[in-house]
Amino acid sequence: MNLSDAATVNIQNISPQLDHGRYPVKRAIGQDLVVEADIFKEGHDVVLALLKYRPVGALVWKETPMRPLVNDRWRGVFSVSSEGSWEYTVEAWGDTFCSWQEEIRKKYDGGIRDLRSETLEGAALVARAAARAGKSADAKKLGKFAAQVQEADAATARELAASAQLAALMRVWPDRSLATEYTPALPLWVDRERAVFGAWYEFFPRSAEGKADTGSTFRECLGRVDDAKAMGFDVIYFPPIHPIGASNRKGRNNSLKCEPGEPGVPYAIGHASQGVNGGGHNDVAPELGTLEDFTWLIGEVKKRGLEIAIDFAINCSPDHPYVKAHPEWFFKRPDGTIKYAENPPKKYEDVYPLNFHNPDWKGLWTELREVIAFWCKLGVRIFRVDNPHTKPVSFWEWLIAGIHETYPDAIFLSEAFTRPKMMQTLAKAGFTQSYTYFTWRNTKYELTEYLTELTRTEMAEYFRANFFTNTPDILPVFLQQGGRPAFMIRAILAATLSPVYGIYSGFELCEGTPIPGREEYLDSEKYQFKGRDWNAPGNIKDTITKLNAIRRDNRAMREYANLRFHPAENDAILFYSKTTTAGDNLLLVAVTLDCVNPQTAFVSVPLADFAIGERETYQVEDLLTGERFTWTGARNFVSLNPHTRPAHVFRVRRWAGRDEGKDVYL
Amino acid sequence: MNLSDAATVNIQNISPQLDHGRYPVKRAIGQDLVVEADIFKEGHDVVLALLKYRPVGALVWKETPMRPLVNDRWRGVFSVSSEGSWEYTVEAWGDTFCSWQEEIRKKYDGGIRDLRSETLEGAALVARAAARAGKSADAKKLGKFAAQVQEADAATARELAASAQLAALMRVWPDRSLATEYTPALPLWVDRERAVFGAWYEFFPRSAEGKADTGSTFRECLGRVDDAKAMGFDVIYFPPIHPIGASNRKGRNNSLKCEPGEPGVPYAIGHASQGVNGGGHNDVAPELGTLEDFTWLIGEVKKRGLEIAIDFAINCSPDHPYVKAHPEWFFKRPDGTIKYAENPPKKYEDVYPLNFHNPDWKGLWTELREVIAFWCKLGVRIFRVDNPHTKPVSFWEWLIAGIHETYPDAIFLSEAFTRPKMMQTLAKAGFTQSYTYFTWRNTKYELTEYLTELTRTEMAEYFRANFFTNTPDILPVFLQQGGRPAFMIRAILAATLSPVYGIYSGFELCEGTPIPGREEYLDSEKYQFKGRDWNAPGNIKDTITKLNAIRRDNRAMREYANLRFHPAENDAILFYSKTTTAGDNLLLVAVTLDCVNPQTAFVSVPLADFAIGERETYQVEDLLTGERFTWTGARNFVSLNPHTRPAHVFRVRRWAGRDEGKDVYL
Repeated sequence: MNLSDAATVNIQNISPQLDHGRYPVKRAIGQDLVVEADIFKEGHDVVLALLKYRPVGALVWKETPMRPLVNDRWRGVFSVSSEGSWEYTVEAWGDTFCSWQEEIRKKYDGGIRDLRSETLEGAALVARAAARAGKSADAKKLGKFAAQVQEADAATARELAASAQLAALMRVWPDRSLATEYTPALPLWVDRERAVFGAWYEFFPRSAEGKADTGSTFRECLGRVDDAKAMGFDVIYFPPIHPIGASNRKGRNNSLKCEPGEPGVPYAIGHASQGVNGGGHNDVAPELGTLEDFTWLIGEVKKRGLEIAIDFAINCSPDHPYVKAHPEWFFKRPDGTIKYAENPPKKYEDVYPLNFHNPDWKGLWTELREVIAFWCKLGVRIFRVDNPHTKPVSFWEWLIAGIHETYPDAIFLSEAFTRPKMMQTLAKAGFTQSYTYFTWRNTKYELTEYLTELTRTEMAEYFRANFFTNTPDILPVFLQQGGRPAFMIRAILAATLSPVYGIYSGFELCEGTPIPGREEYLDSEKYQFKGRDWNAPGNIKDTITKLNAIRRDNRAMREYANLRFHPAENDAILFYSKTTTAGDNLLLVAVTLDCVNPQTAFVSVPLADFAIGERETYQVEDLLTGERFTWTGARNFVSLNPHTRPAHVFRVRRWAGRDEGKDVYL
Repeated sequence: MNLSDAATVNIQNISPQLDHGRYPVKRAIGQDLVVEADIFKEGHDVVLALLKYRPVGALVWKETPMRPLVNDRWRGVFSVSSEGSWEYTVEAWGDTFCSWQEEIRKKYDGGIRDLRSETLEGAALVARAAARAGKSADAKKLGKFAAQVQEADAATARELAASAQLAALMRVWPDRSLATEYTPALPLWVDRERAVFGAWYEFFPRSAEGKADTGSTFRECLGRVDDAKAMGFDVIYFPPIHPIGASNRKGRNNSLKCEPGEPGVPYAIGHASQGVNGGGHNDVAPELGTLEDFTWLIGEVKKRGLEIAIDFAINCSPDHPYVKAHPEWFFKRPDGTIKYAENPPKKYEDVYPLNFHNPDWKGLWTELREVIAFWCKLGVRIFRVDNPHTKPVSFWEWLIAGIHETYPDAIFLSEAFTRPKMMQTLAKAGFTQSYTYFTWRNTKYELTEYLTELTRTEMAEYFRANFFTNTPDILPVFLQQGGRPAFMIRAILAATLSPVYGIYSGFELCEGTPIPGREEYLDSEKYQFKGRDWNAPGNIKDTITKLNAIRRDNRAMREYANLRFHPAENDAILFYSKTTTAGDNLLLVAVTLDCVNPQTAFVSVPLADFAIGERETYQVEDLLTGERFTWTGARNFVSLNPHTRPAHVFRVRRWAGRDEGKDVYL
């Protein structure tokens, strides 16, 4: 036992923290971390506490004072300024000088006038602070104060105990010899801004030009990229771009028989006779071009201010080079042949799953990490990971941590549509963003419950929802049945409910024809070339463009946990707000969830949240149309029509004064 | 990195646990620990999980299967059978055989008839289990099964996959080579039953005979002990029995001037010229007798089936032997004199506080632990600790753990009336039981809120309320003003709301005269001899006796977390139930909180909790009076009068059949 074990200050229940520090909480550069803790000690000493934080590896802690709230709960806050691993903790101590101040005050005010012994004690405390101050300018000042306290009569001691100057000096040079530091420090991971704010646009590069009979190449993708840029997207996401297997290749609409000339499914990865790096995950499909072509495209996209995300799908076709080079990485039958993927009684004979616990598991894990590193070296920093929940969580934790050591700006999006706790754990284990159930949440109850879980529980500390309206695998029933109004509604919800969202191309054209009775697209481009007019009539590109502009122009849209739902007196209308902490950007969104009939509602504006007076007149400006409405009080009327006006996205404008005889709202 | 880091099963959020295992959860011998955890793995393998537990130091884990509930939550349960430190954890794995069973079933039922490869795999799994079974009888049986599976056609394989006998054998010899064990194991502290169930009776030994002019001795305490036994108490608790200091001794009603012959305050401990062990904490006051007398009394009390608790008050009078032997243990003034206790501007000149962080803090801490060990050696096992919140929590954690190594049956009651988090932390750090705010909770809202916090939150895992109705320091206003009905009400509440409760003697006589305007007793026996008739008219000993008998006879009263409040349509009536898990002991309590006027209410019996049909007729037997009422349905009427019938303590009797033409309720 040593003196540090005899710590007198209890520091407990630090928040946020995940599984007692097993996993880091997450923030992005520039964001604040508000830290709270229970801090208390025995007896009557005055307690002081500091929040300490630093990038991992830094020698010195930065410190900021914590303040007591109520019931021994304390709070402090700091901003993070660089990517990577950080840590934070709390230090607290019973402050002898503050306790002395309080003792003098209580005794003097209680009528005691013999404070000779107490002043000597105080003088000693100040003298020791002067010694701690060493050769600094404070040392002299403290020395003077020590002498004054030493000689003080009771009234003077009372004055000195209340001296702001002395208190400030003592705060700078406190006696922390008996301080308690909470250990171990808690982990924090800091991402770049794109991790927490961005609009994604997914398209198959072979479909870039919309030709029905043949595929486009990387060199032919710029038209699509420019169109996405014009719509205001930030990330261009490509499904797998690697060589596609020939064995058991699937034909159109997932048929087992593939006609000659059909392009195959990009998720059946690997063709050993193609490419320059073995024809597996470190190559591009020759029909798309070369690695040089892809590198060129990365550069062109970057020049336009966008960024490419690629798919990391750990699927191997029977033609993948791993099959010959590392047969031990796969599952084998008793006869020694390699097992294809199954979900009994279904078979997937074009894909061989990997065995993550094979005897050479270290070799396999390392190889897969090197695949990510390979694309990082080429300039890719965003990876959408296919089905991570079918691989061990420990594998992802190890892989992502390893990549982040070299590339702290790498972003990983988890495509796990699975059990809630697996989705949460993948996010804790390192995935930057996650696909969600949003795609299937349509009613007011569903959306309110789910978004509240995502943004108002512990999940907000580590799970960042990327709201995709659709994917190549998912054409939700709502879109199949609701027509253009449904696409408008889902675009508005995705773009305004979460700072990160995405669409899979074709959505903007309101493509909604399924294989009957399923959520799959009919004639999906996963299996075939697809002819399209990217400006087909009835498209909603204009609305998407406006939504992305609104997101960019309004800082409240960049935050995640600031979503609040408010009453709308109609279950078909969802009403919510997003505001900045400073309150200088206030948005109100009213969306109809009915894609057939007009709906109206009285909505309740959260006046108190916005610090708007109950009788104050303010304006709401619809950022989709430019219209302004003048409202007073909390209860106001909205009228929505899915065909003409599916939503209001209001910015609240407060009265700022009068100019040229007119009221001005800013 | 090794293979165990590559664990495939995720085990998270094990409950109960305190601060991630920093502190143990608590149970008593014979109680169950219900453990839940989130358990899941990637992919489609069937998961199996075990709850593992053992006394710390045992080499082998005991194991019991866990069962899935919903949403990847699993549950298991075990009973503890011995005092001391235990640990528990969870182990889980993807079970290859169960996964094989499911694969065969799905494929066969899906129409697949070529299962040749799958049966060979299954045969290999069974053969490996046979090898694991070694030389046991199971090995042969498994060997036979392996041969059958090896030769099976599809239909036979389907049958074998469903064989209960094979499944049972494979459960005994599973392949746990890739199992994941949650580490580190979580701590559990197990107490003897007295820690969780008991009625305490506090009296000053010097007041045993109720003589106004002189004190009683240990040898004269048996009358009071026998009276307490007759009332049904389990624990006799003595305020400090050590030599009392002479310097600055307080006189009656806490006066600074002590008249000759006044006995002094037992909390001003230490008189170096008395006793045989220095006159401090290891001695008894000579006016009470000798250590031999006290040892004799311990034995007499034990013979009667009761147990003595003593007070551990770390207060030193100026005459305590530590003052001379260890002046460095105390706080000193600049002039070198020792500081007395203060709470500015108040002074307590008869007590010197100890400095728990003095340079010889190890010496002080060790000495204090040895004091406890000294009394343990004499046969004391229950310690009521005075003001533990004015000493470091780390001191108590160290002291109690040290004592528990040798005396796992030692019970520590924390007398901390202070900030909620300090009270909680002392309980986590080792205190067996805690004083509470119950003493000041009078209204229905207050009682419901507070008891719900105590019994239905995480606190129930470690904080055991000891409900004292009064103490030598606390005569609550409710008792001062409410007269005999108030004492009845508070006795009923304390005895039925918590399995551990206590009264400070005089309560049974309805002593309620305060120092005006304060919660202190007038003419408190803390400062003086006190004359009493222990059978004074108007006493409530009969009710207390009945309450203690009810507690002893009804197992539902021995549980803590089984308290449930139910509606009573009157805020002056509190209505609650206590039931055993098995449902074989059902109690309903209705208490008036009004000590002046009669009150009536319709109360709602929790029929569903008791598995009583909505139209079922049942009886409620008032255990205080023997009366029976026949009730039907949930809503029933009670009429209470503080002067004649302040409460019903009902046992629910269910219809059991007819005998001699009459309905029988048991």
